[in-house]
Amino acid sequence: MKICVAQLEIIPGEPELNTNKILAAIDKAESEGADLLVTSEMSIPGYLIGDNWERLQFIDECERYGEDIIRATRDKHIAVIFGNIAKFDNTQNEDGRVRKSNMAILAANGEILGTQIKTLQPNYREFDDNRHFYDKRKLSQSFDSDTRDTYTNSVFTVNGVKIGMLLCEDGWNADYPLNPIEYFETKPDLIVNISCSPFTSGKNNKRHRIFAKNAIAQQIPILYVNNVGVQNNGKNIFTFDGGSCIYDKQGNIRDFYELFEEATEIFDIDLISLFENTAPILAEDIGALYQAIEYGARRFMESHGITKVVIGVSGGIDSCLVTAIMSRIVKPENLYLINMPSEFNSKTTISIAEELHKSLGCKYYSIPIGASVELTQTQIRDAFGEELSEFSLQNVQARDRSSRILSAIAQHVGGVFTCNGNKSELTVGYCTMLGDLSGFLAPIADLWKTQVYEMAEYFNQNIHNIIPEEVFTIVPSAELSATQNVDEGKGDPIIYKYHDKLFASWVEKWDRSTPEDFLEWLQEGNGVVEKNLGLDFELISLFSTKEDIIADLERWWNLYNGLAIAKRIQSPPLISVSRRSFGFDLRESQMKAHYSRRYYELKKAILG
Amino acid sequence: MKICVAQLEIIPGEPELNTNKILAAIDKAESEGADLLVTSEMSIPGYLIGDNWERLQFIDECERYGEDIIRATRDKHIAVIFGNIAKFDNTQNEDGRVRKSNMAILAANGEILGTQIKTLQPNYREFDDNRHFYDKRKLSQSFDSDTRDTYTNSVFTVNGVKIGMLLCEDGWNADYPLNPIEYFETKPDLIVNISCSPFTSGKNNKRHRIFAKNAIAQQIPILYVNNVGVQNNGKNIFTFDGGSCIYDKQGNIRDFYELFEEATEIFDIDLISLFENTAPILAEDIGALYQAIEYGARRFMESHGITKVVIGVSGGIDSCLVTAIMSRIVKPENLYLINMPSEFNSKTTISIAEELHKSLGCKYYSIPIGASVELTQTQIRDAFGEELSEFSLQNVQARDRSSRILSAIAQHVGGVFTCNGNKSELTVGYCTMLGDLSGFLAPIADLWKTQVYEMAEYFNQNIHNIIPEEVFTIVPSAELSATQNVDEGKGDPIIYKYHDKLFASWVEKWDRSTPEDFLEWLQEGNGVVEKNLGLDFELISLFSTKEDIIADLERWWNLYNGLAIAKRIQSPPLISVSRRSFGFDLRESQMKAHYSRRYYELKKAILG
Repeated sequence: MKICVAQLEIIPGEPELNTNKILAAIDKAESEGADLLVTSEMSIPGYLIGDNWERLQFIDECERYGEDIIRATRDKHIAVIFGNIAKFDNTQNEDGRVRKSNMAILAANGEILGTQIKTLQPNYREFDDNRHFYDKRKLSQSFDSDTRDTYTNSVFTVNGVKIGMLLCEDGWNADYPLNPIEYFETKPDLIVNISCSPFTSGKNNKRHRIFAKNAIAQQIPILYVNNVGVQNNGKNIFTFDGGSCIYDKQGNIRDFYELFEEATEIFDIDLISLFENTAPILAEDIGALYQAIEYGARRFMESHGITKVVIGVSGGIDSCLVTAIMSRIVKPENLYLINMPSEFNSKTTISIAEELHKSLGCKYYSIPIGASVELTQTQIRDAFGEELSEFSLQNVQARDRSSRILSAIAQHVGGVFTCNGNKSELTVGYCTMLGDLSGFLAPIADLWKTQVYEMAEYFNQNIHNIIPEEVFTIVPSAELSATQNVDEGKGDPIIYKYHDKLFASWVEKWDRSTPEDFLEWLQEGNGVVEKNLGLDFELISLFSTKEDIIADLERWWNLYNGLAIAKRIQSPPLISVSRRSFGFDLRESQMKAHYSRRYYELKKAILG
Repeated sequence: MKICVAQLEIIPGEPELNTNKILAAIDKAESEGADLLVTSEMSIPGYLIGDNWERLQFIDECERYGEDIIRATRDKHIAVIFGNIAKFDNTQNEDGRVRKSNMAILAANGEILGTQIKTLQPNYREFDDNRHFYDKRKLSQSFDSDTRDTYTNSVFTVNGVKIGMLLCEDGWNADYPLNPIEYFETKPDLIVNISCSPFTSGKNNKRHRIFAKNAIAQQIPILYVNNVGVQNNGKNIFTFDGGSCIYDKQGNIRDFYELFEEATEIFDIDLISLFENTAPILAEDIGALYQAIEYGARRFMESHGITKVVIGVSGGIDSCLVTAIMSRIVKPENLYLINMPSEFNSKTTISIAEELHKSLGCKYYSIPIGASVELTQTQIRDAFGEELSEFSLQNVQARDRSSRILSAIAQHVGGVFTCNGNKSELTVGYCTMLGDLSGFLAPIADLWKTQVYEMAEYFNQNIHNIIPEEVFTIVPSAELSATQNVDEGKGDPIIYKYHDKLFASWVEKWDRSTPEDFLEWLQEGNGVVEKNLGLDFELISLFSTKEDIIADLERWWNLYNGLAIAKRIQSPPLISVSRRSFGFDLRESQMKAHYSRRYYELKKAILG
């Protein structure tokens, strides 16, 4: 049997576009002799559409488009597996609305040949499946039956091949009390897993391990079909990387495409035993993150019709990398670099910004902020009879750049401006609200500062060598006061080589660590802190005493759990690429930073 | 038996504070002869703490504080029912972390006498229970049993009284396939429902109906104990109104306190048959919303140590109401009213702002924006050789006020500044990012503009008559250009008496309506649009033709589903009081505005 894998770009909330794309793929596959076309989960509605799942008419609409696809198999030889939302009239979801499920549909000869409802629904990170969908476990229960006894998955025959269908998380069974693949009523010849699965650092290699293991254990080949595109939940833009592939009974993998590319390919299921393990081990390096970020920014902007981008370029590494990324997406004549010097900006950084502009041939403007900052100082002095503090003045400068100049230019040219912030800054709120924290999109806000450097180097070496070398040698600095003079080597208070690792342990580790963990490690000694954080230097080399280490720990923990949350609530959307990104992925409440009783005991024990 | 109802203020993420408060209440109740003290759900950890539920050490900590409470009943006569998080070591939640549940604990004589795990977990609106907690239904399943057959709730005896425990949503069973109150192994003499239930418009009267109905049906009195305080999930600040009360077998209700107040009261369960129905029918009017907003703003600010507030007062109704609310919370000397006139601000509105300041005796400054706006114009002209458009200039003014002046003043005086936006503006993005949309808190952003007027009137009549009468008579206007001259009656493009109702049908209706619904109503004729939206005038009186009605509909629908979402992603936290508020309560993705096929058919049919 010949199967066409249709790895399509799915646009969330655009059922008509998605359906037309699937219909075209069906025609093409039929004409090329395919017996079955498989496309991805939720291929008609999209997946990350927020509470639009509550809109009954949208669901109706998606069901009608689904019927178009089913009808399209009439008078055709080809069968089709696709994903859609399905609602069950006269039944109730637990939010009081009509019950609906995430469904795989097998259609042939103009009719539904079989369906499958998702059993395992993710409710962690960005996922909210239980909020909207009734899973197969609840459904079994609602029929007054015991899920474990009566729960079975049907098998459907296409061209003599017995096919079992599963949906996405059903194949990622490691954390659930049941494994849907074990519940088929008869042994299928092929499992088809349709997915709508976003890219995350390291995800695909993990999938290869779990899916290959299941294929070997069940002695059934598994076909995985995922979509490409971008979908968002407001705060987070997720990229969908495709990566459709087949796992044979020996766990060999054959993948079909480059990641992040739309494609259809026909293969013969009878010949898969002849495949070699042709899947490359997927890189989990900075290049993989770069690919996701460039793709995410491009498709997000295209989907909003954005063609002109304004970037505030200070001449630091963050604005250089954002400029580099945007230079791949918009034309030079639509890329506006704006340098906004004050008395504190060095010739060094200004010349980096100028050099960058020359390499790219894009637009460049220098608009100083001095007069405006002075005006604000004067107005405050006149009103209050007092001078703004140095710290206040730093923020006045940052806000002047973004809220006064960049916003006005973006609107004037009919474009948008970027937020160039990184994850290190966002973690502890080392950024100014209405200042450098603002923008339509924060493309690198899910990268630690050390990763920003790594990606800039990667860009120069692999994409386009345009980021001036000097930016890699100067100290990172906000250049908002004389105390942040880069030429004197003065800069940010964050020691990135250490704090990036410390912050990552708070944010990205699966069991996110706390100061209590840290003090346990510190008390243990013997390099346990360094080992657990992955430091390649001794921590004490950065601090004079353990008092200093602990004071530093508390300073950043308080900020991370304090003011930084207030800032993140109002921060721009970011492109999520890490194992845990701020926003809807890591849900936060404004509360006081918490230290446990055990923390205080440890602190006392360590400091004596 | 004498029961002490402890309606306490619970601070999320502060287990030590909460525990100490409960311990003090136990001592007091024991000394006053109570046999049982009941306090609220999750009374140790709090409830809206985001993904802090993942922090194992925090859970450990809460369990240890729970042990303190259990130990406190040793050598005492009194028993205690309280709520806490409970984790089950060596078991797995479906996010791969350790399994944990929302638990009610009955402690007596220094030991746990009984526990109950929440069965029904809300996953709509702001609630994410399944993300974190393993409910009793799943737990039953995981023991390889059928929930319906083996699922029972234990009954525990205190002083000869058989008590059944339930948690919050367990009592709100209307939308679930089972009603936990029906599953007690023996008939209790008393059901204790401990809750952590936020205020929502109309909620308490609905609770009275459902709880009283259950009490009558089961012929068991139900004691409801809820906490007070504020808890947030970042975007939304929810108020908890307490409202603890008892429902007797006849459905009579006796409530114990004023809403939003901390209190403990002892009553004799044997005497409840003597109660009359003493619960007032709770007002669902603007006064109830005012109470929630003032309480929410006050407790949110107090919990962040905020004592100084800066308000941009244009002299419009929104800034007048926000000032009025804040005047109840901060001292006059800590309240800074800032009027920021341009050439477009009328003497009328400026004099309203001045009058307001005089009535309150607070601080007042007039800081004009002309020079800064001119500077921005000049800098753009110099750089681009072009003039800013009138629309661009409007936004330059709005941003100058908030991002340049209010931010600088707030930081200078060591305070914060407010966002005075309302829900009508937020729905369609009639506001400027980095301008009037910014601020630390948007206290009235869950009120429609028509409600803002209503609340301002309520404030004058019931709280403090200080909002100048003239503000009720002028047309609402942004005063950002000559086309918005209030003295000439020119103002906002939103027709609030109509659009507030239209927008509410899109946002707040349980089954949120769409343009398709609207066209169905329009086609039906006979005042169906007016009836469904609750208009007290004929829609056609506002528009010349049906074309105009539909063009207007599409204009706002496109904004609501388009640019306004981008704005809401970066908007400040708001106090949620309605049946559906923007933020975490209504989850949104940036997508294209969707119109169904049926919509286009209807439009064609109507316009011919």
